[in-house]
Amino acid sequence: MVTCKPYVVGIDCGGTNTVMGIVDSRGKVVAKNAIKTKAYIEFNDFIDAIARSLSELFEQVGGPQMITGIGIGAPNGNYYTGTIEYAPNLPWKGILPLADALYERLGIPVAVTNDANAAAIGEMTYGAARGMRDFIEITLGTGVGSGIVINGELVYGHDGFAGELGHVRIRHNGNRMCGCGMTDHLECYCSATGVARTAREFLATRETPSALRNLVPEEITSKDVFDAAMAGDALAKEIFDFTGRIMGQAFADFVAFSAPEAIILFGGLANAGDLLMKPIVKAMEENLLQIWKGKIKVLPSGLASGDAAVLGASALGWKAKNEN
Amino acid sequence: MVTCKPYVVGIDCGGTNTVMGIVDSRGKVVAKNAIKTKAYIEFNDFIDAIARSLSELFEQVGGPQMITGIGIGAPNGNYYTGTIEYAPNLPWKGILPLADALYERLGIPVAVTNDANAAAIGEMTYGAARGMRDFIEITLGTGVGSGIVINGELVYGHDGFAGELGHVRIRHNGNRMCGCGMTDHLECYCSATGVARTAREFLATRETPSALRNLVPEEITSKDVFDAAMAGDALAKEIFDFTGRIMGQAFADFVAFSAPEAIILFGGLANAGDLLMKPIVKAMEENLLQIWKGKIKVLPSGLASGDAAVLGASALGWKAKNEN
Repeated sequence: MVTCKPYVVGIDCGGTNTVMGIVDSRGKVVAKNAIKTKAYIEFNDFIDAIARSLSELFEQVGGPQMITGIGIGAPNGNYYTGTIEYAPNLPWKGILPLADALYERLGIPVAVTNDANAAAIGEMTYGAARGMRDFIEITLGTGVGSGIVINGELVYGHDGFAGELGHVRIRHNGNRMCGCGMTDHLECYCSATGVARTAREFLATRETPSALRNLVPEEITSKDVFDAAMAGDALAKEIFDFTGRIMGQAFADFVAFSAPEAIILFGGLANAGDLLMKPIVKAMEENLLQIWKGKIKVLPSGLASGDAAVLGASALGWKAKNEN
Repeated sequence: MVTCKPYVVGIDCGGTNTVMGIVDSRGKVVAKNAIKTKAYIEFNDFIDAIARSLSELFEQVGGPQMITGIGIGAPNGNYYTGTIEYAPNLPWKGILPLADALYERLGIPVAVTNDANAAAIGEMTYGAARGMRDFIEITLGTGVGSGIVINGELVYGHDGFAGELGHVRIRHNGNRMCGCGMTDHLECYCSATGVARTAREFLATRETPSALRNLVPEEITSKDVFDAAMAGDALAKEIFDFTGRIMGQAFADFVAFSAPEAIILFGGLANAGDLLMKPIVKAMEENLLQIWKGKIKVLPSGLASGDAAVLGASALGWKAKNEN
């Protein structure tokens, strides 16, 4: 008898919310739920809460026997070990046995990876990278993450942590401290917080009039800069230009590494459209070796933004069947 | 009947010499020959000369029926198409059908890749990377090349040209023009010619006494700097320090990409030993994310230096059997 398990679970484990959804083979989220990550002092209570929430969702699709596997995207998630390792934004410290703990409670195979890798797998399964065998997913949020696909496979590296492109060095003037403790990383400039930092820097060092001058500098967000730029504000546009130029220069280096078909942008800032895309492509093209000029696509994510993180994680669930 | 073809051919196609050898399964070069690359005005004459040389070599091992395949490492060699594309250091321009032309003459499967990729495959098959599934080979010669292995497979990328790590940007001051037409690439600093450039720069801008001041600046080679450093010359040591530091910083970025088990150095400068290794490892460690500190090996090549390029190319020959 062939057992038919038509669904997977995707869990997006974030510092604030942990969102979970049941997803069908065409990438439709058929049931969804969320819990507050920080409401659980003990890691085991957090896992119990996920298991309870999922059990409720399972009833909506005919029970747990309908689920092929569970995929989880979590900060510092390690695919090889199924653990979360020293995640700075989560309430529990050390090495957390995420996959094992959830498998114990539910008896369904669980695969774990970091959120950016999950986004890349989602992009390949349901999004803009369908049919691609070589691409790089760049996630632009509070930080900058990445998931690298080569030959149709996600790159995990020797230890499961490959693809930390937010932490490549893109300047050497020591001007910006990164959350990781070093300086001048891509993330310091091209994350949402990096854009806000650039705004404060430009406001302090340039004379250009700008609507951003009406805001309290410490409270400026990348959304404020985006809104101002869309309204035609010259300084705000300059900030996006600067951000995109740095990103494009970095992308040229990434191309020299893996010669991808495309680089795909995922997350809030990716929605800035031409404001960001134009300077990215211009700077990338200027810095590409001759053999790649005009050949590398830069694309926005094709994942529906509301469900993207859950979808990405869920795509890992299809493969989880052989992991445990 | 099982046909036993116990040998492969490795061809190292360089700007000056094209060296070819017959290699057994344990990585021993059993017969060897060379021709002058620049002696052939027409590409077809060059291919005829290779075919003639190989036919002579074949007689020494029992004829062409003893050969599984031919692997060629050539500048701008494309694995997917078997062609050489626009190689600046070869006498023939445009796209050259290397694999097809040689297969036509000899009837033996031919696989082509660039010289650095060939070195990586050789390293994995016969050298310091035996048993590794994730490593990066950095070739230090007139230029800086690289071959990247992920999950036990060489990374060719979408178009066959992946792994041009000599052309990632490692400074942003525009001080050094690269052979490719852009500035501040790794190759401008860490190739043999880069070391010589640093020597000229340091001699012009620093007061430190040095044996290198007795040489004509334009004629200084990396070998001169190496000899001076080994003799205790302070400025020469500083040059190696500077070179190694830049390399180590770049290596930290490469680790963020593919999280390799090791980075392996191949070619002339790799023989500088601690002079180069110490500053490389120091700078790499300073720039690695916490999760990788103390975990990434930096190793010299394990390929016997005289035959390394031929061995590397020959390793590709074992796989060539399925390509044509």
